[in-house]
Amino acid sequence: MNKYIFGVDIGGTATKLGAFSLDGQLLCKWEIPTDTGGGGGRIMPNIAREIVRYAGDTRSVAAAGVGVPGPVRRDGYVRRCVNLGWGNFNPARDLSAHLEGVPVFAGNDANVAAMGEYWKGGGRGARSLVFVTLGTGVGGGIVIDGHMVYGSTGLGGEIGHIVVNPQETVPCNCGQYGCLDQTASATGVVRHAQRILAASDAPSALRAMENFTARDVFDAAKDGDAPAYEAVDTCMGYLGRALAMLTHILDPDVYIIGGGVSKAGTFLTDIVRRHYERYAVLSEQKAQVALATLGSDAGIYGAAKLALDAVR
Amino acid sequence: MNKYIFGVDIGGTATKLGAFSLDGQLLCKWEIPTDTGGGGGRIMPNIAREIVRYAGDTRSVAAAGVGVPGPVRRDGYVRRCVNLGWGNFNPARDLSAHLEGVPVFAGNDANVAAMGEYWKGGGRGARSLVFVTLGTGVGGGIVIDGHMVYGSTGLGGEIGHIVVNPQETVPCNCGQYGCLDQTASATGVVRHAQRILAASDAPSALRAMENFTARDVFDAAKDGDAPAYEAVDTCMGYLGRALAMLTHILDPDVYIIGGGVSKAGTFLTDIVRRHYERYAVLSEQKAQVALATLGSDAGIYGAAKLALDAVR
Repeated sequence: MNKYIFGVDIGGTATKLGAFSLDGQLLCKWEIPTDTGGGGGRIMPNIAREIVRYAGDTRSVAAAGVGVPGPVRRDGYVRRCVNLGWGNFNPARDLSAHLEGVPVFAGNDANVAAMGEYWKGGGRGARSLVFVTLGTGVGGGIVIDGHMVYGSTGLGGEIGHIVVNPQETVPCNCGQYGCLDQTASATGVVRHAQRILAASDAPSALRAMENFTARDVFDAAKDGDAPAYEAVDTCMGYLGRALAMLTHILDPDVYIIGGGVSKAGTFLTDIVRRHYERYAVLSEQKAQVALATLGSDAGIYGAAKLALDAVR
Repeated sequence: MNKYIFGVDIGGTATKLGAFSLDGQLLCKWEIPTDTGGGGGRIMPNIAREIVRYAGDTRSVAAAGVGVPGPVRRDGYVRRCVNLGWGNFNPARDLSAHLEGVPVFAGNDANVAAMGEYWKGGGRGARSLVFVTLGTGVGGGIVIDGHMVYGSTGLGGEIGHIVVNPQETVPCNCGQYGCLDQTASATGVVRHAQRILAASDAPSALRAMENFTARDVFDAAKDGDAPAYEAVDTCMGYLGRALAMLTHILDPDVYIIGGGVSKAGTFLTDIVRRHYERYAVLSEQKAQVALATLGSDAGIYGAAKLALDAVR
């Protein structure tokens, strides 16, 4: 009888599923809407139904892993997950119950994505990595010696709230001032570009755009637009400094940069690397700074890897 | 036949040794001078001689662990250790050769001390901890799920070089500005007190002292001396902020504060905790901030634990 591992990545609007063989090959991936109605109580039954539909029955399911958009403790417990409507809930235990006792493991989505990039993505071959996801905000995940860092209360890898610029006058949504989240996110890049444009009369292609995006800023910077380049260099400079701090704390082999903003490619990683190498002063052999390669599949890979590691 | 585990902590002037039973009891501890002559080549033969003298023969030695004052890779390799005269040297392999093949494991001294506090000290019962040693400088070590974080090149736990005050105008000896090392160390406390005294005419007992120490500053602060208290609050405030960052990165169960400055006791940890709790904004259940309990024995305990974990 075939046995499968499932990797599941739950988002606020869609849930991705991946069916894997026991030797770690992705056999099939698909997506369903996340039904957050009923206090989030329908999410796990829906996932269980999808898994059983693919596998035929629960006896063909060796294990499953789940990525959740919020802090998750090692035992699967979620204190609160606003996007999904959960509070004091153990999604791992719940899904397991819906699958007649199949072992299920859960983790925070960015942590699980870090595990995916470690296993099959940009961090393949590394022993340890820090994954940074640059989107509307900045998230992250840490893998050390093949183990995902959950943290005692599920906060491991929340590197967006490292303070890199204490002089910042606008508060972060976390209440602090000058978090990485405020500078290296898409929002941060746009805000810094607006500030730089407002502070001078230097010509810039951005001035003609009504509501420019982080992508517009990166595109203009690549075309040699000076204010745009200054914004990118400032924002990615803060990221470089944060990575230097992480080298003095964790000293990973590699930093993997993912998320929407990372579509700017090696133009972005080259800038981050330059700042990182300048500030990682104690490090005689610098870590690599590389792009994520799994895109939005990182979550299902990482969730499957959690499950595989647990049952192997 | 009795079998022993040895924990060794090599310092620039003295080397501490501890003989442990296989069930982890410290049976005997003693100290020898560190003979750094001959390019550091006599250090390991001297340690081997001490171990054999206690154990009777190498067959009675199950394993040994060694703490080294510098970065150590997981395989024991040391690229450079200025204090001991070593370069491109593997002290673990060397000691093993001098002990007829007994397994030997090495780690950075502060990392090893973290492991000691985790095993038998202030972090007993925790799954994960960050150990901070406040002395002339600021060092540290990280234990996650019982494993010491070496880092890819042996830099793991160098938290003294987290930048907490980028506005600092005096460079750190690492070349950066505003490292934790410059603020929360004994040197940092004295410098901040000098600055605060120079900036006002406020009365202070410190003004009558020619060369006051960090201990003098803490003692005056405990007695209600306002400038002294401001210096302590500023410096320990930076430490609290650094711990908040570490909570957003690693989310440990507990922070353990050791080193000479920590003799200021709960007066110090209360101040650190207040700042830490203010800045660890994402954390709903704050980590403990506790004092180290093993003092200068932390290294031999941690080194023995490295060896025990490897042979068990």
